Amino acid sequence: MNIIQEESLPITMHKEWRGKIETAVRAPLENSYDLALAYTPGVAEPCLAIKSDKNRSFELTRRWNTVAVVTNGTAVLGLGDIGPAAGLPVMEGKAALFKAFGGVDAVPVCIDSKDPEKVIETVALIESNFGGINLEDISAPSCFIIENELKKRLSIPVMHDDQHGTATVVLAALKNALRLCGKKLDKVSIVINGCGAAGTAIAKLLMKAGAKKLTMCDKKGILTEETTEEGSHMRELAMVTNKRKLKGTLKTAVKKADVFIGVSAANVLKAEDVASMNEKPIIFAMANPIPEILPDIAKNAGAFVVGTGRSDFPNQINNVLAFPGIFRGALDAEATDITDEMLIAAADAIAGLVGEDELSREKIVPDAFDPRIAEAVAEAVRNVAVSLGVTRKSKA
Amino acid sequence: MNIIQEESLPITMHKEWRGKIETAVRAPLENSYDLALAYTPGVAEPCLAIKSDKNRSFELTRRWNTVAVVTNGTAVLGLGDIGPAAGLPVMEGKAALFKAFGGVDAVPVCIDSKDPEKVIETVALIESNFGGINLEDISAPSCFIIENELKKRLSIPVMHDDQHGTATVVLAALKNALRLCGKKLDKVSIVINGCGAAGTAIAKLLMKAGAKKLTMCDKKGILTEETTEEGSHMRELAMVTNKRKLKGTLKTAVKKADVFIGVSAANVLKAEDVASMNEKPIIFAMANPIPEILPDIAKNAGAFVVGTGRSDFPNQINNVLAFPGIFRGALDAEATDITDEMLIAAADAIAGLVGEDELSREKIVPDAFDPRIAEAVAEAVRNVAVSLGVTRKSKA
Repeated sequence: MNIIQEESLPITMHKEWRGKIETAVRAPLENSYDLALAYTPGVAEPCLAIKSDKNRSFELTRRWNTVAVVTNGTAVLGLGDIGPAAGLPVMEGKAALFKAFGGVDAVPVCIDSKDPEKVIETVALIESNFGGINLEDISAPSCFIIENELKKRLSIPVMHDDQHGTATVVLAALKNALRLCGKKLDKVSIVINGCGAAGTAIAKLLMKAGAKKLTMCDKKGILTEETTEEGSHMRELAMVTNKRKLKGTLKTAVKKADVFIGVSAANVLKAEDVASMNEKPIIFAMANPIPEILPDIAKNAGAFVVGTGRSDFPNQINNVLAFPGIFRGALDAEATDITDEMLIAAADAIAGLVGEDELSREKIVPDAFDPRIAEAVAEAVRNVAVSLGVTRKSKA
Repeated sequence: MNIIQEESLPITMHKEWRGKIETAVRAPLENSYDLALAYTPGVAEPCLAIKSDKNRSFELTRRWNTVAVVTNGTAVLGLGDIGPAAGLPVMEGKAALFKAFGGVDAVPVCIDSKDPEKVIETVALIESNFGGINLEDISAPSCFIIENELKKRLSIPVMHDDQHGTATVVLAALKNALRLCGKKLDKVSIVINGCGAAGTAIAKLLMKAGAKKLTMCDKKGILTEETTEEGSHMRELAMVTNKRKLKGTLKTAVKKADVFIGVSAANVLKAEDVASMNEKPIIFAMANPIPEILPDIAKNAGAFVVGTGRSDFPNQINNVLAFPGIFRGALDAEATDITDEMLIAAADAIAGLVGEDELSREKIVPDAFDPRIAEAVAEAVRNVAVSLGVTRKSKA
């Protein structure tokens, strides 16, 4: 028994910081004149301008640059349903990352309800404060319902990062890994293990980007019409994947496959599974904190490129490569939505930052701290949004 | 006709600022180690700590210092019901004032609903992000329903500033004005014109502080049982005021009164009304932008002390003297509520900052930019909260 009880370093630091974000003031408030302009009576002017034209709030307040980081705490990190209060340290951290990496102002909004309708309504009621909504750590299938409905109802971009940020970085990493292997996205056979938020979104984005041979697996094995419930998102996936009509376990699915993408659990992929794959297999083992297979084991079994979610292995497939730039670009474009085309452009930008001379089996994505990333991603996303007319100006 | 269309200076400045507040990052995020502490995987630690004990969120996040500035845009400044989007410039300004004057982090939360139940529910659902709630620019009587219900439901302080911040500063100003006149609060006859949010709260706080002879007036005249509807907040006020059982108009009410407090409309108090008051009458004419009577007219008619809400006249009765320090003190005390005792302590602190040698007919309140105010108010409020046990520690 430890007589001296130790506190973990993260706890010590969080106590020291007393919060990872704070409010900063941008307008001078030194004297009565300043107050008369920024507050009463001068502030009546921008109020009346917005009353006449709601969209002027983007020009006259910080709304244009502010994203709500929304959760109900039902799927926080690997901890599961810990609730909104316990989710706040993550949302604060996310907000800090938004600002530090993308210059995007961000506000945690932890909502105390597991009812998707209540989460949807709460966000809809506070839309006028924000230029975008980042959904975070909300369990499937609620996250699909919530995101789909909010995308319909709101005039500002809505994105569940666990779905689409992850999918974007996976696509970027895969593009570069395929370049190295000399293989094509529409030709390779891809297995995705895990059909929650991330797995579902990865599947859809890869297919949108051109992938044709996807097989989905979950704890029960290969997703087929028979193994999935009608009306579920898994049934929906089963109907558009597994063209080979395979049945059985993950082991069966990965046999002769080119790519394994894991967003599932620790140690579910074995050395012999990797060995059974096609030549030059690509392994993205993203379970956190322990991946589906450790990189060394995978490489010894023949893996050509290995990526994980961890910063202590090469090829970290880290959402921070995507979400700051995606929202930066969407906000700058005055986008009304974040579409698959915008995500694919983001993925291309991320992949493109790894130069020909740098690209290698140990380097398929840029380092998270590469200062070029957010700007490159933002520019790509903005250009696509504008050219597709997914913007307020186009809808005016 | 102006061929060159001019833009008002406030509009120009709001466009230049592109927002009066922004997010600032407090934790280092320079490298993988930093991220591992502030974000994954280290952030799991504070999450688990809060899951075990919800109140640890005050220690491990910025919640302890963050106030939501909540409106539904139904009573913004003097503009009335302009809606939440159009109210945002005011809420941003309020948030900037909270931070600049009180060091309180603040987040605008404009809610798109006129239904008090929806406003209540939305705030209750997002309680876990905040250490306090400042309600702002919500019309009466909804503001009473919303504030009362939120005070019941939430474990953090809730205050409608238009009610209680105003009341606090009026009490402070009145205390000093009475000192100058050599009169006592429990002896003077006070007329309050305006029975909305501010008038109602001023009446209640003055009575709590010891005032005994209050008469309320609104557009229809003196509030009596007969002139008010059953169940309305005005009936409630009528039953505890107007002990003399006066009937009639404002003119009747102010005859021989000592104090006139206006939170109503321009020019409703005439020179002859002031002349009909008791000797050394005190006039607080706070209608904005044009007061109930102009100071010079009031003084020429015999007013002894005149205060308004405007910065271009002496004795500005300005809420910024109160709300930053009130919330600063409540947050520092880890208060669960803001009570009348705390408000009275705040009023005493504000009044006390005008030294004996300074106190004069043209100086009954400190200047809004006096750097001592927020700290003095905060200390007074904190001490009262702690001594009354209105704190989380006391309820633990």
